[in-house]
Amino acid sequence: MGDGSEFARILAENERYTEAFDRSALTAAPLRGIAIVACMDARLDVEETLGLRTGDAHIIRNAGGIATDDVIRSLVVSQALLGTDEIVVIGHTQCGLLGADEETIRHRLTATTGVDLDIGFGSFADLEASIRASVERLRAHPWIDARRIHGLVFDVETGRLRELA
Amino acid sequence: MGDGSEFARILAENERYTEAFDRSALTAAPLRGIAIVACMDARLDVEETLGLRTGDAHIIRNAGGIATDDVIRSLVVSQALLGTDEIVVIGHTQCGLLGADEETIRHRLTATTGVDLDIGFGSFADLEASIRASVERLRAHPWIDARRIHGLVFDVETGRLRELA
Repeated sequence: MGDGSEFARILAENERYTEAFDRSALTAAPLRGIAIVACMDARLDVEETLGLRTGDAHIIRNAGGIATDDVIRSLVVSQALLGTDEIVVIGHTQCGLLGADEETIRHRLTATTGVDLDIGFGSFADLEASIRASVERLRAHPWIDARRIHGLVFDVETGRLRELA
Repeated sequence: MGDGSEFARILAENERYTEAFDRSALTAAPLRGIAIVACMDARLDVEETLGLRTGDAHIIRNAGGIATDDVIRSLVVSQALLGTDEIVVIGHTQCGLLGADEETIRHRLTATTGVDLDIGFGSFADLEASIRASVERLRAHPWIDARRIHGLVFDVETGRLRELA
Protein backbone atom coordinates (compact mmCIF):
# COMPACT_ATOMS: atom_id res chain seq x y z
CA MET A 1 0.00 0.00 0.00
CA GLY A 2 0.81 3.66 -0.03
CA ASP A 3 2.61 4.08 -3.33
CA GLY A 4 -0.04 6.55 -4.53
CA SER A 5 -1.07 4.50 -7.53
CA GLU A 6 -4.48 3.52 -6.12
CA PHE A 7 -6.16 6.81 -6.99
CA ALA A 8 -5.01 6.73 -10.62
CA ARG A 9 -6.20 3.13 -10.88
CA ILE A 10 -9.64 4.09 -9.52
CA LEU A 11 -10.04 6.80 -12.16
CA ALA A 12 -9.04 4.36 -14.92
CA GLU A 13 -11.48 1.73 -13.59
CA ASN A 14 -14.22 4.35 -13.57
CA GLU A 15 -13.62 5.09 -17.26
CA ARG A 16 -14.47 1.47 -17.97
CA TYR A 17 -17.52 1.64 -15.67
CA THR A 18 -19.00 4.60 -17.54
CA GLU A 19 -18.79 2.78 -20.87
CA ALA A 20 -21.51 0.31 -19.83
CA PHE A 21 -23.40 2.64 -17.48
CA ASP A 22 -27.17 2.31 -17.92
CA ARG A 23 -28.65 3.59 -14.67
CA SER A 24 -29.32 7.16 -15.76
CA ALA A 25 -33.09 6.79 -15.24
CA LEU A 26 -32.82 6.12 -11.50
CA THR A 27 -33.98 8.73 -8.99
CA ALA A 28 -32.80 9.36 -5.44
CA ALA A 29 -35.56 7.25 -3.82
CA PRO A 30 -34.30 3.67 -3.40
CA LEU A 31 -36.30 1.23 -5.53
CA ARG A 32 -36.68 -1.36 -2.76
CA GLY A 33 -37.41 1.13 0.03
CA ILE A 34 -34.68 -0.23 2.23
CA ALA A 35 -31.70 1.18 4.15
CA ILE A 36 -28.70 -0.90 5.18
CA VAL A 37 -26.51 -0.02 8.18
CA ALA A 38 -23.26 -1.98 8.05
CA CYS A 39 -19.65 -1.97 9.14
CA MET A 40 -17.09 -0.38 6.79
CA ASP A 41 -15.17 -3.68 6.71
CA ALA A 42 -13.50 -4.40 3.36
CA ARG A 43 -14.64 -8.05 3.36
CA LEU A 44 -18.31 -7.07 3.23
CA ASP A 45 -19.55 -6.11 -0.25
CA VAL A 46 -23.05 -5.05 0.79
CA GLU A 47 -24.61 -5.16 -2.68
CA GLU A 48 -23.24 -8.61 -3.54
CA THR A 49 -23.84 -10.13 -0.11
CA LEU A 50 -27.49 -9.01 -0.03
CA GLY A 51 -28.25 -9.34 -3.74
CA LEU A 52 -28.89 -5.61 -4.16
CA ARG A 53 -28.60 -3.82 -7.47
CA THR A 54 -27.62 -0.22 -8.10
CA GLY A 55 -30.59 1.94 -7.10
CA ASP A 56 -32.14 -0.53 -4.67
CA ALA A 57 -31.08 0.69 -1.24
CA HIS A 58 -29.39 3.34 0.84
CA ILE A 59 -26.16 2.01 2.28
CA ILE A 60 -24.85 3.59 5.49
CA ARG A 61 -21.52 2.35 6.83
CA ASN A 62 -19.12 3.19 9.65
CA ALA A 63 -16.57 1.46 11.84
CA GLY A 64 -18.52 -1.29 13.59
CA GLY A 65 -21.87 -0.76 11.89
CA ILE A 66 -22.99 1.02 15.05
CA ALA A 67 -26.17 3.12 15.27
CA THR A 68 -24.42 6.39 16.11
CA ASP A 69 -26.06 9.83 15.99
CA ASP A 70 -24.75 10.22 12.45
CA VAL A 71 -26.38 6.95 11.39
CA ILE A 72 -29.66 8.17 12.91
CA ARG A 73 -29.32 11.42 10.97
CA SER A 74 -28.79 9.44 7.78
CA LEU A 75 -31.75 7.13 8.46
CA VAL A 76 -34.07 10.06 9.17
CA VAL A 77 -33.03 11.57 5.82
CA SER A 78 -33.53 8.15 4.17
CA GLN A 79 -37.04 7.71 5.57
CA ALA A 80 -38.39 11.26 5.74
CA LEU A 81 -36.96 12.60 2.49
CA LEU A 82 -36.57 9.50 0.37
CA GLY A 83 -39.30 7.12 1.50
CA THR A 84 -37.50 4.04 2.83
CA ASP A 85 -39.34 2.08 5.53
CA GLU A 86 -37.19 -0.96 6.29
CA ILE A 87 -33.75 -1.11 7.99
CA VAL A 88 -31.18 -3.90 8.13
CA VAL A 89 -28.28 -3.58 10.62
CA ILE A 90 -25.25 -5.77 9.84
CA GLY A 91 -22.30 -6.56 12.10
CA HIS A 92 -19.70 -9.18 11.24
CA THR A 93 -17.33 -11.74 12.70
CA GLN A 94 -13.66 -10.82 13.22
CA CYS A 95 -14.47 -7.10 13.46
CA GLY A 96 -11.42 -4.94 14.25
CA LEU A 97 -13.41 -3.20 16.99
CA LEU A 98 -14.32 -6.41 18.80
CA GLY A 99 -12.34 -6.32 22.02
CA ALA A 100 -10.15 -3.42 20.88
CA ASP A 101 -8.41 -1.67 23.77
CA GLU A 102 -9.39 2.00 23.49
CA GLU A 103 -6.80 3.26 25.98
CA THR A 104 -3.93 1.58 24.15
CA ILE A 105 -5.05 3.04 20.82
CA ARG A 106 -5.47 6.49 22.31
CA HIS A 107 -2.06 6.44 23.95
CA ARG A 108 -0.40 5.30 20.77
CA LEU A 109 -2.07 8.02 18.68
CA THR A 110 -1.24 10.64 21.28
CA ALA A 111 2.40 9.54 21.32
CA THR A 112 2.63 9.43 17.52
CA THR A 113 0.92 12.74 16.78
CA GLY A 114 1.70 14.75 19.90
CA VAL A 115 -2.01 15.57 20.21
CA ASP A 116 -4.29 14.03 22.83
CA LEU A 117 -7.97 13.82 21.86
CA ASP A 118 -11.02 12.38 23.58
CA ILE A 119 -12.36 10.27 20.70
CA GLY A 120 -14.18 7.03 21.43
CA PHE A 121 -13.50 4.37 18.81
CA GLY A 122 -16.68 2.35 19.25
CA SER A 123 -15.05 -0.87 20.44
CA PHE A 124 -17.35 -3.55 21.82
CA ALA A 125 -17.00 -6.77 23.81
CA ASP A 126 -19.82 -8.83 22.30
CA LEU A 127 -20.79 -8.80 18.62
CA GLU A 128 -24.41 -9.88 18.96
CA ALA A 129 -24.99 -7.55 21.90
CA SER A 130 -23.59 -4.68 19.84
CA ILE A 131 -25.94 -5.36 16.93
CA ARG A 132 -28.91 -5.76 19.27
CA ALA A 133 -28.07 -2.48 20.99
CA SER A 134 -28.04 -0.71 17.62
CA VAL A 135 -31.36 -2.26 16.61
CA GLU A 136 -32.91 -1.26 19.94
CA ARG A 137 -31.59 2.28 19.70
CA LEU A 138 -33.15 2.67 16.26
CA ARG A 139 -36.46 1.10 17.37
CA ALA A 140 -36.67 3.52 20.28
CA HIS A 141 -35.97 6.64 18.22
CA PRO A 142 -39.07 8.81 17.81
CA TRP A 143 -38.19 9.87 14.24
CA ILE A 144 -37.46 6.38 12.91
CA ASP A 145 -40.08 3.96 11.61
CA ALA A 146 -39.69 1.00 13.98
CA ARG A 147 -41.91 -1.49 12.21
CA ARG A 148 -39.25 -3.30 10.18
CA ILE A 149 -35.76 -3.22 11.67
CA HIS A 150 -33.65 -6.37 11.44
CA GLY A 151 -30.27 -7.37 12.88
CA LEU A 152 -27.86 -9.66 11.00
CA VAL A 153 -24.42 -11.14 11.57
CA PHE A 154 -22.18 -11.48 8.49
CA ASP A 155 -19.65 -14.31 8.70
CA VAL A 156 -16.49 -13.16 6.90
CA GLU A 157 -15.31 -16.75 6.47
CA THR A 158 -18.43 -18.07 4.72
CA GLY A 159 -20.20 -14.99 3.36
CA ARG A 160 -23.33 -16.06 5.19
CA LEU A 161 -25.82 -13.72 6.88
CA ARG A 162 -27.50 -14.96 10.06
CA GLU A 163 -30.54 -13.24 11.51
CA LEU A 164 -30.57 -12.35 15.17
CA ALA A 165 -33.70 -13.55 16.94
CA MET B 1 -42.20 -0.72 -1.13
CA GLY B 2 -43.07 -1.75 2.37
CA ASP B 3 -44.73 -5.13 1.91
CA GLY B 4 -42.10 -6.79 4.09
CA SER B 5 -40.86 -9.13 1.39
CA GLU B 6 -37.49 -7.41 0.98
CA PHE B 7 -35.90 -9.00 4.01
CA ALA B 8 -36.85 -12.54 2.98
CA ARG B 9 -35.50 -11.85 -0.51
CA ILE B 10 -32.20 -10.63 0.93
CA LEU B 11 -31.75 -13.84 2.91
CA ALA B 12 -32.51 -15.93 -0.18
CA GLU B 13 -30.05 -13.91 -2.27
CA ASN B 14 -27.42 -14.42 0.41
CA GLU B 15 -27.86 -18.20 0.16
CA ARG B 16 -26.84 -17.93 -3.48
CA TYR B 17 -23.93 -15.65 -2.58
CA THR B 18 -22.46 -18.14 -0.12
CA GLU B 19 -22.41 -20.90 -2.73
CA ALA B 20 -19.67 -19.16 -4.70
CA PHE B 21 -17.99 -17.41 -1.77
CA ASP B 22 -14.20 -17.60 -1.99
CA ARG B 23 -12.93 -14.73 0.14
CA SER B 24 -12.38 -16.66 3.34
CA ALA B 25 -8.62 -15.92 3.31
CA LEU B 26 -9.05 -12.14 3.58
CA THR B 27 -8.11 -10.32 6.78
CA ALA B 28 -9.48 -7.10 8.23
CA ALA B 29 -6.73 -4.91 6.75
CA PRO B 30 -7.87 -3.62 3.32
CA LEU B 31 -5.66 -4.99 0.53
CA ARG B 32 -5.33 -1.64 -1.25
CA GLY B 33 -4.82 0.45 1.89
CA ILE B 34 -7.62 2.82 0.98
CA ALA B 35 -10.74 4.20 2.69
CA ILE B 36 -13.71 5.61 0.76
CA VAL B 37 -16.08 8.19 2.26
CA ALA B 38 -19.24 8.43 0.17
CA CYS B 39 -22.91 9.35 0.27
CA MET B 40 -25.40 6.55 1.08
CA ASP B 41 -27.18 7.24 -2.23
CA ALA B 42 -28.65 4.12 -3.85
CA ARG B 43 -27.37 5.10 -7.30
CA LEU B 44 -23.74 4.87 -6.22
CA ASP B 45 -22.36 1.33 -6.09
CA VAL B 46 -18.96 2.19 -4.64
CA GLU B 47 -17.23 -1.07 -5.54
CA GLU B 48 -18.42 -1.08 -9.17
CA THR B 49 -17.92 2.64 -9.74
CA LEU B 50 -14.33 2.57 -8.45
CA GLY B 51 -13.39 -0.90 -9.66
CA LEU B 52 -12.87 -2.22 -6.13
CA ARG B 53 -13.07 -5.89 -5.23
CA THR B 54 -14.15 -7.44 -1.96
CA GLY B 55 -11.32 -6.92 0.53
CA ASP B 56 -9.79 -3.89 -1.18
CA ALA B 57 -11.08 -0.92 0.82
CA HIS B 58 -12.96 0.37 3.82
CA ILE B 59 -16.21 1.97 2.73
CA ILE B 60 -17.74 4.61 4.99
CA ARG B 61 -21.07 6.09 3.95
CA ASN B 62 -23.64 8.51 5.36
CA ALA B 63 -26.25 10.96 4.10
CA GLY B 64 -24.28 13.44 2.00
CA GLY B 65 -20.89 11.78 2.23
CA ILE B 66 -19.98 14.42 4.80
CA ALA B 67 -16.89 14.25 7.06
CA THR B 68 -18.81 14.16 10.35
CA ASP B 69 -17.31 13.24 13.73
CA ASP B 70 -18.46 9.66 13.14
CA VAL B 71 -16.63 9.53 9.81
CA ILE B 72 -13.50 10.82 11.52
CA ARG B 73 -13.86 8.11 14.18
CA SER B 74 -14.15 5.49 11.42
CA LEU B 75 -11.15 6.86 9.52
CA VAL B 76 -8.98 6.90 12.64
CA VAL B 77 -9.91 3.23 13.20
CA SER B 78 -9.19 2.54 9.51
CA GLN B 79 -5.75 4.11 9.62
CA ALA B 80 -4.55 3.45 13.17
CA LEU B 81 -5.88 -0.10 13.57
CA LEU B 82 -6.02 -1.38 10.02
CA GLY B 83 -3.28 0.42 8.15
CA THR B 84 -5.00 2.42 5.40
CA ASP B 85 -3.24 5.60 4.28
CA GLU B 86 -5.29 7.03 1.42
CA ILE B 87 -8.80 8.57 1.54
CA VAL B 88 -11.27 9.32 -1.27
CA VAL B 89 -14.30 11.52 -0.47
CA ILE B 90 -17.19 11.21 -2.95
CA GLY B 91 -20.22 13.46 -3.30
CA HIS B 92 -22.67 13.19 -6.18
CA THR B 93 -25.01 15.16 -8.40
CA GLN B 94 -28.74 15.28 -7.56
CA CYS B 95 -28.09 14.61 -3.87
CA GLY B 96 -31.25 14.72 -1.75
CA LEU B 97 -29.49 16.99 0.73
CA LEU B 98 -28.55 19.59 -1.89
CA GLY B 99 -30.69 22.60 -1.09
CA ALA B 100 -32.93 20.66 1.32
CA ASP B 101 -34.89 22.96 3.65
CA GLU B 102 -34.04 21.79 7.16
CA GLU B 103 -36.79 23.78 8.88
CA THR B 104 -39.51 22.32 6.66
CA ILE B 105 -38.28 18.77 7.29
CA ARG B 106 -38.06 19.35 11.04
CA HIS B 107 -41.55 20.84 11.22
CA ARG B 108 -43.01 17.97 9.24
CA LEU B 109 -41.34 15.34 11.42
CA THR B 110 -42.41 17.14 14.58
CA ALA B 111 -45.99 17.32 13.34
CA THR B 112 -46.04 13.67 12.27
CA THR B 113 -44.42 12.19 15.37
CA GLY B 114 -45.41 14.65 18.08
CA VAL B 115 -41.77 14.90 19.11
CA ASP B 116 -39.56 17.90 18.40
CA LEU B 117 -35.84 17.17 18.13
CA ASP B 118 -32.83 19.30 17.32
CA ILE B 119 -31.26 17.12 14.61
CA GLY B 120 -29.35 18.72 11.77
CA PHE B 121 -29.79 16.84 8.50
CA GLY B 122 -26.56 17.89 6.83
CA SER B 123 -28.10 19.79 3.93
CA PHE B 124 -25.79 21.90 1.81
CA ALA B 125 -26.10 24.62 -0.82
CA ASP B 126 -23.13 23.80 -3.06
CA LEU B 127 -21.97 20.28 -3.90
CA GLU B 128 -18.33 21.01 -4.68
CA ALA B 129 -18.00 23.29 -1.65
CA SER B 130 -19.41 20.52 0.54
CA ILE B 131 -16.88 17.97 -0.74
CA ARG B 132 -14.02 20.46 -0.39
CA ALA B 133 -15.09 21.25 3.18
CA SER B 134 -15.01 17.55 4.04
CA VAL B 135 -11.58 17.10 2.46
CA GLU B 136 -10.26 20.13 4.33
CA ARG B 137 -11.68 18.95 7.65
CA LEU B 138 -9.96 15.59 7.23
CA ARG B 139 -6.67 17.18 6.16
CA ALA B 140 -6.71 19.39 9.26
CA HIS B 141 -7.42 16.59 11.71
CA PRO B 142 -4.38 15.76 13.88
CA TRP B 143 -5.13 12.01 13.94
CA ILE B 144 -5.66 11.57 10.20
CA ASP B 145 -2.87 11.03 7.68
CA ALA B 146 -3.26 14.05 5.39
CA ARG B 147 -0.85 13.05 2.64
CA ARG B 148 -3.32 11.45 0.22
CA ILE B 149 -6.90 12.73 0.51
CA HIS B 150 -8.87 13.24 -2.69
CA GLY B 151 -12.27 14.74 -3.48
CA LEU B 152 -14.49 13.41 -6.29
CA VAL B 153 -17.91 14.19 -7.75
CA PHE B 154 -19.96 11.21 -8.97
CA ASP B 155 -22.39 12.04 -11.78
CA VAL B 156 -25.50 9.88 -11.28
CA GLU B 157 -26.51 10.35 -14.92
CA THR B 158 -23.27 9.11 -16.47
CA GLY B 159 -21.55 7.08 -13.74
CA ARG B 160 -18.47 9.24 -14.15
CA LEU B 161 -16.16 10.38 -11.35
CA ARG B 162 -14.61 13.83 -11.65
CA GLU B 163 -11.70 14.92 -9.49
CA LEU B 164 -11.90 18.23 -7.70
CA ALA B 165 -8.81 20.35 -8.24
